[in-house]
Amino acid sequence: MIGAIEAGGTKFVCAVGNPDGTIIDSTAFPTTTPDDTLAKVEAFFAKHPIEKLGVGAFGPINLRAGSENYGMIEKTPKIPWRYYPLMEELEKRLSVPVAIQTDVVVASMGEYEYGIGKHAASCLYITVGTGIGAGLVQDGKAFQGRNHSEMGHVLLQKHPDDAFEGACPSHGSCLEGLAAGPAIEARYGIKGAELADEDHVWELEAYYLAQAIMDYFVILSPEKIILGGGVMKQEKLYPMIREKFMELLNDYIEVEDVEALIVAPALNDEQGVKGCIALAAKS
Amino acid sequence: MIGAIEAGGTKFVCAVGNPDGTIIDSTAFPTTTPDDTLAKVEAFFAKHPIEKLGVGAFGPINLRAGSENYGMIEKTPKIPWRYYPLMEELEKRLSVPVAIQTDVVVASMGEYEYGIGKHAASCLYITVGTGIGAGLVQDGKAFQGRNHSEMGHVLLQKHPDDAFEGACPSHGSCLEGLAAGPAIEARYGIKGAELADEDHVWELEAYYLAQAIMDYFVILSPEKIILGGGVMKQEKLYPMIREKFMELLNDYIEVEDVEALIVAPALNDEQGVKGCIALAAKS
Ligand SMILES: Nc1ncnc2c1ncn2[C@@H]1O[C@H](COP(=O)(O)OP(=O)(O)O)[C@@H](O)[C@H]1O
Ligand SMILES: Nc1ncnc2c1ncn2[C@@H]1O[C@H](COP(=O)(O)OP(=O)(O)O)[C@@H](O)[C@H]1O
Ligand SMILES: [Zn+2]
Ligand SMILES: [Zn+2]
Repeated sequence: MIGAIEAGGTKFVCAVGNPDGTIIDSTAFPTTTPDDTLAKVEAFFAKHPIEKLGVGAFGPINLRAGSENYGMIEKTPKIPWRYYPLMEELEKRLSVPVAIQTDVVVASMGEYEYGIGKHAASCLYITVGTGIGAGLVQDGKAFQGRNHSEMGHVLLQKHPDDAFEGACPSHGSCLEGLAAGPAIEARYGIKGAELADEDHVWELEAYYLAQAIMDYFVILSPEKIILGGGVMKQEKLYPMIREKFMELLNDYIEVEDVEALIVAPALNDEQGVKGCIALAAKS
Repeated sequence: MIGAIEAGGTKFVCAVGNPDGTIIDSTAFPTTTPDDTLAKVEAFFAKHPIEKLGVGAFGPINLRAGSENYGMIEKTPKIPWRYYPLMEELEKRLSVPVAIQTDVVVASMGEYEYGIGKHAASCLYITVGTGIGAGLVQDGKAFQGRNHSEMGHVLLQKHPDDAFEGACPSHGSCLEGLAAGPAIEARYGIKGAELADEDHVWELEAYYLAQAIMDYFVILSPEKIILGGGVMKQEKLYPMIREKFMELLNDYIEVEDVEALIVAPALNDEQGVKGCIALAAKS
């Protein structure tokens, strides 16, 4: 059996399953201190012996090939986890080989192997939630450079009617600072879910997401672009984003079917754990 | 021996060399009609028998895996070359296996194998000339999605003092439209080379290039970013771009040595043909 951990900043999901993507059992608990959280991880896998483990972790995390701190959480705002050697600890406590990637790369892997991207050569999975991140899986492998991508921080053109200064502490107007859930909340003083009927909110949201997707598209040329995360619960965003993306692209690159290009996930919040299974199965 | 063709829109360079990157002989001639140009190609390789051929082609070109038109020039403004099956014709006329990529990907491959990127795990080569393009080579392989990248068309924030509407017919304010050689010329009515002493010209140029590099960096996380092409003859641009890039990145991702990250090419306009040699040698 293969183990999976979706190691999120607010909760951990542990699961066991098979390489075909079936999940046999799973559990979830809040992310507290490393010791307390990993004790719960150990307890779950004590009941379910595994051969290998796949992990999708919150970040930033060291994924630099050859680094002696490979698999270590880096300078996160979650102080107890700062510089915590997550991969090494899991290998030690569970005595199995561990494959680790970012949370969004494993989500991409899950959709690529078992979900909406099953017949595509490459999938870009974008999560629009508390933060914005994206991960590319191409020809069955996670794409990654010297370290993992930070795609949520691409720089955007501000909308002329948007006076909000951006919520990213590092960049005036990056995608995450302008379009993640907390940016919506900071701009209007109201949570996204309660703004469902305010059309201009979603116009602006689609405007920013379409710009970023245009950049990802011309750079990475993915076959599927999957948009997930809390903010995408606003399903009306999909057609709006597709329309604005096609406007921005302006026929520069042929897109035969934008509805098949920009899509919703198919795995119902299970793309993360299933992606961990796939990651471990391939390693 | 290995053959190389840098198939540019204005000139073709043909060469023969060895897998270590040494060039034995080469020739160059203007790009005219396909028949006339390929007759000259045949004449050159008739004198220099080769086992394989690597080609770096102007675009857009069909590089879609499995396409029956793989290696065909697509909808180029150069009418005689439109939908010309370049790879197929070369295979037929020279009776050798042909490996083909975009001009900028082979330049990247050349610098990666034999030049400034020799000890790096990944190189992004950006050419700033008549157009702007970029190609990524990672772990010895050209990165490519469903088709080749069109990285020159990332969307940028306009500088508040820049009233120029952009020279790209498709996008109001993409990198190519704001910062390629013809954009500089259209903005000021004077060629870039003659504006060498106008500091504000290069401030603006560095501002736009740094923005695009920030996007490439957060998405691709390359180890080396190599800037070449006619406009980069203005060597003062390098320190200006580095400074603006570090300002934009704002410590979000650690960069130990920006002078080692953002660099000039090392192969003196031979990265293209040498990259073709490497591409063929690996295929
Ligand atoms: N129905 C909704 N409409 C708009 N925004 C929502 C909705 N549901 C959740 N969000 C926003 O999504 C964010 C949480 O994203 P989510 O993907 O659920 O979690 P996380 O990114 O922390 O894993 C919050 O900022 C929240 O306000
Ligand atoms: N010294 C220079 N300073 C600024 N711009 C230059 C300089 N030399 C050439 N250029 C510009 O670079 C462009 C040509 O780029 P180049 O890389 O030589 O060719 P191409 O992109 O067509 O292969 C032209 O727009 C030209 O004005
Ligand atoms: Zn940011
Ligand atoms: Zn453009």
